[in-house]
Amino acid sequence: MTDENRLIYLPLGGAGEIGMNAYVYGYGKPGKGRLILVDLGITFPDMDTTPGVEQILPDIAWLKERRDRLDAIFITHAHEDHVGALAHLYADLDVPVYARAFTANIARRKMDEQGHPESAVHVVDPWPHQVKAGPFRVGFLPIAHSIPESAGLVIDTPKGRLIHSGDFKLDPEPVVGEAFDPDLWASVAALGVHALMCDSTNVFSPSPGRSESELSGPIQDLLADAPGMVVATTFASNIARLVTIAEAAQKVGRSVVLLGRAMRRMVEAAVETGILTDFPGVVSPEDAAQIPRENLLVLATGSQGERRAASAQLARGKFLGIEMKAGDTFLFSSKTIPGNERDVIRIMNQLSERGIDVVDDSGGRYHVSGHANRPDLQRLHSIVKPKMIIPMHGEHRHLREHVKLAEEAGFASAIAVNGTMLDLTGDTPQVLELLEAGRTYVDGSVKIGAFDGIVRDRIRMALNGHVTVNIIIDEENRLLGDPWCEPMGLPPKGQSRKPVADRIEKELSSFFARADRKLMKDDGKIDDAIRRIARQTANSEIGKKPEVTVIISRLE
Amino acid sequence: MTDENRLIYLPLGGAGEIGMNAYVYGYGKPGKGRLILVDLGITFPDMDTTPGVEQILPDIAWLKERRDRLDAIFITHAHEDHVGALAHLYADLDVPVYARAFTANIARRKMDEQGHPESAVHVVDPWPHQVKAGPFRVGFLPIAHSIPESAGLVIDTPKGRLIHSGDFKLDPEPVVGEAFDPDLWASVAALGVHALMCDSTNVFSPSPGRSESELSGPIQDLLADAPGMVVATTFASNIARLVTIAEAAQKVGRSVVLLGRAMRRMVEAAVETGILTDFPGVVSPEDAAQIPRENLLVLATGSQGERRAASAQLARGKFLGIEMKAGDTFLFSSKTIPGNERDVIRIMNQLSERGIDVVDDSGGRYHVSGHANRPDLQRLHSIVKPKMIIPMHGEHRHLREHVKLAEEAGFASAIAVNGTMLDLTGDTPQVLELLEAGRTYVDGSVKIGAFDGIVRDRIRMALNGHVTVNIIIDEENRLLGDPWCEPMGLPPKGQSRKPVADRIEKELSSFFARADRKLMKDDGKIDDAIRRIARQTANSEIGKKPEVTVIISRLE
Repeated sequence: MTDENRLIYLPLGGAGEIGMNAYVYGYGKPGKGRLILVDLGITFPDMDTTPGVEQILPDIAWLKERRDRLDAIFITHAHEDHVGALAHLYADLDVPVYARAFTANIARRKMDEQGHPESAVHVVDPWPHQVKAGPFRVGFLPIAHSIPESAGLVIDTPKGRLIHSGDFKLDPEPVVGEAFDPDLWASVAALGVHALMCDSTNVFSPSPGRSESELSGPIQDLLADAPGMVVATTFASNIARLVTIAEAAQKVGRSVVLLGRAMRRMVEAAVETGILTDFPGVVSPEDAAQIPRENLLVLATGSQGERRAASAQLARGKFLGIEMKAGDTFLFSSKTIPGNERDVIRIMNQLSERGIDVVDDSGGRYHVSGHANRPDLQRLHSIVKPKMIIPMHGEHRHLREHVKLAEEAGFASAIAVNGTMLDLTGDTPQVLELLEAGRTYVDGSVKIGAFDGIVRDRIRMALNGHVTVNIIIDEENRLLGDPWCEPMGLPPKGQSRKPVADRIEKELSSFFARADRKLMKDDGKIDDAIRRIARQTANSEIGKKPEVTVIISRLE
Repeated sequence: MTDENRLIYLPLGGAGEIGMNAYVYGYGKPGKGRLILVDLGITFPDMDTTPGVEQILPDIAWLKERRDRLDAIFITHAHEDHVGALAHLYADLDVPVYARAFTANIARRKMDEQGHPESAVHVVDPWPHQVKAGPFRVGFLPIAHSIPESAGLVIDTPKGRLIHSGDFKLDPEPVVGEAFDPDLWASVAALGVHALMCDSTNVFSPSPGRSESELSGPIQDLLADAPGMVVATTFASNIARLVTIAEAAQKVGRSVVLLGRAMRRMVEAAVETGILTDFPGVVSPEDAAQIPRENLLVLATGSQGERRAASAQLARGKFLGIEMKAGDTFLFSSKTIPGNERDVIRIMNQLSERGIDVVDDSGGRYHVSGHANRPDLQRLHSIVKPKMIIPMHGEHRHLREHVKLAEEAGFASAIAVNGTMLDLTGDTPQVLELLEAGRTYVDGSVKIGAFDGIVRDRIRMALNGHVTVNIIIDEENRLLGDPWCEPMGLPPKGQSRKPVADRIEKELSSFFARADRKLMKDDGKIDDAIRRIARQTANSEIGKKPEVTVIISRLE
């Protein structure tokens, strides 16, 4: 191992998955380098793997152990998968946070909710301004995305310039915010870029990305033709989309209602930070009651079918006095993220049952992606012309495909999933170390580790059910009374047509009738035996081996 | 209520959902009509709503109560969602089952597994042969679908001819089995059709359906170009697809390995029933070891990402001696059914981690649907020219859209979801009755009702965790010792940084210290109090209200 200064890159989240972005950069001698963190996002739980979990955060144990070497956190944009974990993990890191105004506005709201000082978040002007953080100087280079004020980061290091793309698309006309400026990016790259860390989510999309501005016409036509009320849903943070839809509404004489807390909060942040001067034609849900329904356009949260969001509530019935009726139209101006299909389809069918026409993006008319497609990635590569390209933000298949794309064009490249520490010092990326990359769950109000076994136990109870077995042992080490069995989440009867609980109790009784004094003194062995008998008996009765809680009460 | 003979239609499954098809037809005086059942399929469970459930069956309670009036069961084709529940529910119905040879072969295997006589399933020749069942005469009219020997049913009744389409597509060249024969269908319809019950699954697909025969070229090109071994997955029952892929393999000099029990079983059934004389170029997995990998094509089960199927096993490692390596190719010649995306994507990423190229159907080159698209539905409507069209097999949104399509073309129509009894006697469908349409779960080895609360308890444990609380009360109605609390699936510590179990025990102790003699005699009240205190304490400590099992032991 050399003792030279080295430049490292270490994704802790977002590499090998879509969501939960968190990337460490380091510079210095091994074990002594200074560190910065780019983004600190969450990912979302699901019933299959994380039932009952609220949010999933990157495991930052590695960084926490080295927090004396951490100089700053930089947030590229205000999407949950880039900023959502900041307030949850800030206490463990406690360093200045830098972001552009809109991003900072959102970050501060989250910090405030968790009782952290808003002053920890510093607003940074865009490029050419730079923030000094240890050996790094970091600038926010504007780029288009599906949220205002997204930025790529220009990270100047003693080994050269890095560019961290953030999430981006090459939109020449993004409706709200800064268009992609190829000349600006070329000028930043003109003196040479050492490495480009680049968004990979849409690497499998073969056509060039479409501009946000293309949606205005089709949406206006839809709003003009729809006979009743129209409810449209999209991500609340997609301010440009909200504006596109609201302006189309205004043109066809519809007033706009914002429904859902996230929707109002995002618009508020956009107005507070000067991105919007105001929002076109908004009326309150109360005032909407006075307006004929064919003159209403409702913007609702919950495009992914989230059960507590406005769209799901409207699909089930009245929400804040607004109720959809037969002849109304519901527009999904959004893409369904893989895994959310069932929830979205449930809403579509609930709306169908009530006679409401549902329009989704299957025709590609009412939604465009916020990410760079394959040809856009190639275009950025060729503008930036870095020595190496490290794909980030994507599942393994995206990273691998992006590496192929980069290598085909002659760039050095490497797959680095969460926990892969790359040495970027030389002209090609080298794997230095593979750390175990974990996850942290926000479970109820508590943070737990993904490998703690807590959620695993809940999944097992969901699949297998649960039984409690209680026995009482007297002062003479004899069973007092009969074993007691209480099942939960199990079919009451099976094979023998007798209650499963009775069958388990009977098997346990005959076991204890035969048990010798030595065994009766050994809680460990009793526990094992009860567990085995309960599971075997249940299995032969009902074909399920339940989870077992054993309670041995000893009278002393 | 009249006492005239009437013709009824009653879906018990498949209408308002995709899957679990089961349709009752009846003819006779109210309360005395004779009945037949068309199809008896399953649907698949998921973690969100049915964790731990094996299979989901239609609730046939209504039919079971009237089984003295049931004359026969007809199975249109051998897909699980049309025949999968037959063997599970046969004992409750116990009437002759009719199907074409291939379907009967599959049905008999299932009957045999559940200990029912294979002889209950009768093989029926296709149209013009008809089976008499009470007042009905039923014929099997060949139609193309993604499984051999699919049939629409011609159901002649005293009120006229009905056609039950089954699942179908209008494929002129289906590779295996009968092409759609418009002249045959027109001739069957020539004397007038009273009602057409029609598949709705693809009503939102705007272009005409594509033929199975279109895939042969692209698949052969892919197999010719791929450098290493190719593994292809599709539904095992799609014999035509298996043949298309296997023939392409033969042409480019690859031997074929069938991997997965369902794959072998389906091919076996096709050979036994004369649909295939043999299967092209098959070698055993053992023999494959001797063949260079670039000369191998593996057909594997598990296109939907099922964890125990061959594809998932290959993605994780070796399966029956076969192992994929960097440079190999994996082809999904299939569509991912909504809800299965996460499982399929997991496999794609596991393959990517091992350097295997994954080809899916995102380009539409390697898969065609087995169902009729919107223009195909219109074409069938206009060939059959029925008095009325009743959409079946589809979610509510599909049925509703299909009704619109039918009505626009001037046909009488109606939405009838599971449990809707339609009177088809007159010229337009009339709703007679709305039954509660339930579901039956196969849970472990036991059948339970969807509303029994068993699965609901498991879902709650998955979300909220579980605690057992045990107290012992002595002969004098006093607490003996301390309350005991045992959590499962909960974070061990929260707010107070003390174990949650300790905190609950402490709260319970102070409750019992204050409890009066009257309360201590009342198990119901004690149970309520323990439950409330355990949940409240957990909630304030860890933000979760667990499910609680209370065990009160009384020494007597």
